[in-house]
Amino acid sequence: MRPILIVGSIAFDTLHLGGKCHSKVLGGSATYASMSAAHFNPVQLVGVVGQDFPDSATKLLRDRGVDLAGLEIAQGETFHWEGRYSEDLSSRETLRTDLNVFADFKPKIPQSFRKAPFVMLGNIDPTLQIEVLEQIDKPAFVLADTMNLWIDIRQNELKTLCSRVDMLVLNDEEARQLTDKANLVHAAKALRALGPKQVVIKKGEHGALLFQNDEVFALPALPLASVVDPTGAGDTFAGALIGYLARSNDLSSNSVRRSLAYGSVLASFCVEGVGMERVSKISTADVDARYEQLRGLTSF
Amino acid sequence: MRPILIVGSIAFDTLHLGGKCHSKVLGGSATYASMSAAHFNPVQLVGVVGQDFPDSATKLLRDRGVDLAGLEIAQGETFHWEGRYSEDLSSRETLRTDLNVFADFKPKIPQSFRKAPFVMLGNIDPTLQIEVLEQIDKPAFVLADTMNLWIDIRQNELKTLCSRVDMLVLNDEEARQLTDKANLVHAAKALRALGPKQVVIKKGEHGALLFQNDEVFALPALPLASVVDPTGAGDTFAGALIGYLARSNDLSSNSVRRSLAYGSVLASFCVEGVGMERVSKISTADVDARYEQLRGLTSF
Repeated sequence: MRPILIVGSIAFDTLHLGGKCHSKVLGGSATYASMSAAHFNPVQLVGVVGQDFPDSATKLLRDRGVDLAGLEIAQGETFHWEGRYSEDLSSRETLRTDLNVFADFKPKIPQSFRKAPFVMLGNIDPTLQIEVLEQIDKPAFVLADTMNLWIDIRQNELKTLCSRVDMLVLNDEEARQLTDKANLVHAAKALRALGPKQVVIKKGEHGALLFQNDEVFALPALPLASVVDPTGAGDTFAGALIGYLARSNDLSSNSVRRSLAYGSVLASFCVEGVGMERVSKISTADVDARYEQLRGLTSF
Repeated sequence: MRPILIVGSIAFDTLHLGGKCHSKVLGGSATYASMSAAHFNPVQLVGVVGQDFPDSATKLLRDRGVDLAGLEIAQGETFHWEGRYSEDLSSRETLRTDLNVFADFKPKIPQSFRKAPFVMLGNIDPTLQIEVLEQIDKPAFVLADTMNLWIDIRQNELKTLCSRVDMLVLNDEEARQLTDKANLVHAAKALRALGPKQVVIKKGEHGALLFQNDEVFALPALPLASVVDPTGAGDTFAGALIGYLARSNDLSSNSVRRSLAYGSVLASFCVEGVGMERVSKISTADVDARYEQLRGLTSF
């Protein structure tokens, strides 16, 4: 078994969706990514929560195959984010961010996690993402996710991080913002020049693009009749992607293409429920069936 | 040979693109669609131009295999549209519309065109599109394109038209507007309930979706390093689509999927040049090479 080390945020979200308010929804980049990656391979999670973090949440993660030896329980409350989505779910506004115990988070990688061959640096401050790399042995594959906030306030650190990872995952707007190039082909070229062998550009309901070697791979998203909550879809996508790569232990370009398809499949389940309610209930058979559906949907 | 009857607008466009102004650019829905469809099969064009329409334009169309027996030359000037694109080419504003001879256009289908087995009703007033159907024998396949203007001011006529065509082609915003459904899966279902066996939803740089029988086909667009002018890309897409169907004479669901891929290929050439400059110069080998590129780009 090739464990996947996943570092990132763990949160409780308050989600305003279509006139309804859902409070105390388990969230955070590391949580979504871990629940997704663990569908494929064992996960070692590193993150911080407060004393309010309930047994039900740790049980949910453990039952899915997530090793919580790196879960730090700090004095105070768990990171809390509150946001309201637009009616068509295409945009959201942050109503409140309570960093709480996350404000002083310094990832401490347990000795037993330092040899993980697959590493996902979930969306947190790139300074912390780099600190994780300082603590671990040379892994076979490192994926880093990021967001617009870090492009705004930690651009130099983010570029340093890029020089040290194998794959960078970000969305189309972030790719444009980080490179100052409107055309995604040019943006991806500029991002690969920073270091990553693979650049994955997420486009939400429009799918994703993968740039590696001299080739491009374009994957549409599954058209869904019911989209309930987009929270965590990107983290879920990246989690499944690295999960598949770890399970297959195959970093060939075709395998990386397939990993995006698995990412898209898990993300499609993610948005069909509030928080992790849908992803936490699906089986391997569900995942495989939808993967075949995605293949059928895209072939000509 | 199975000729394709194409009816629509013929225009001269003035295009403001990235600070440059291009005037007297040959355009119009029927022109773009014909130049694209004629890459695959002979085209019979019906449209109106003014006395200012130059020999160079008729020669361009004839040389590509377009039969101009249905080209009406009326007293006055050719339809003129002037528009300015945003810097990233994602939106445009109309600066001026001179309908000229197009204001009184009543499509007259020559006797020799009335048995065409494949018919494309390019984007014009749905009342006129219906008048075309009244003049022709029962064709094997009718494709109709439309635009937001007709959804605004001719919605009933457009819905009547839908009940009489095999395929409806429109973009995502138009699909939402015509059905009042934000979700494209629901919108496509509502559109198919109006009559068309196939509904194609264009998403520009994000590709296209095809809904037919109980299946969905999702096709990404080729990521292009150079996008110069999006004018006519949708008409070019639809023209190649019906062109491929006519050439193959195969209306199976797999063939319709392939026809979208050829549509995407021709549209990708279209946007790489101003007006028709690129599409008018490519060869069958260029088209086939890019089709294989699109297959490679999407397979996993």
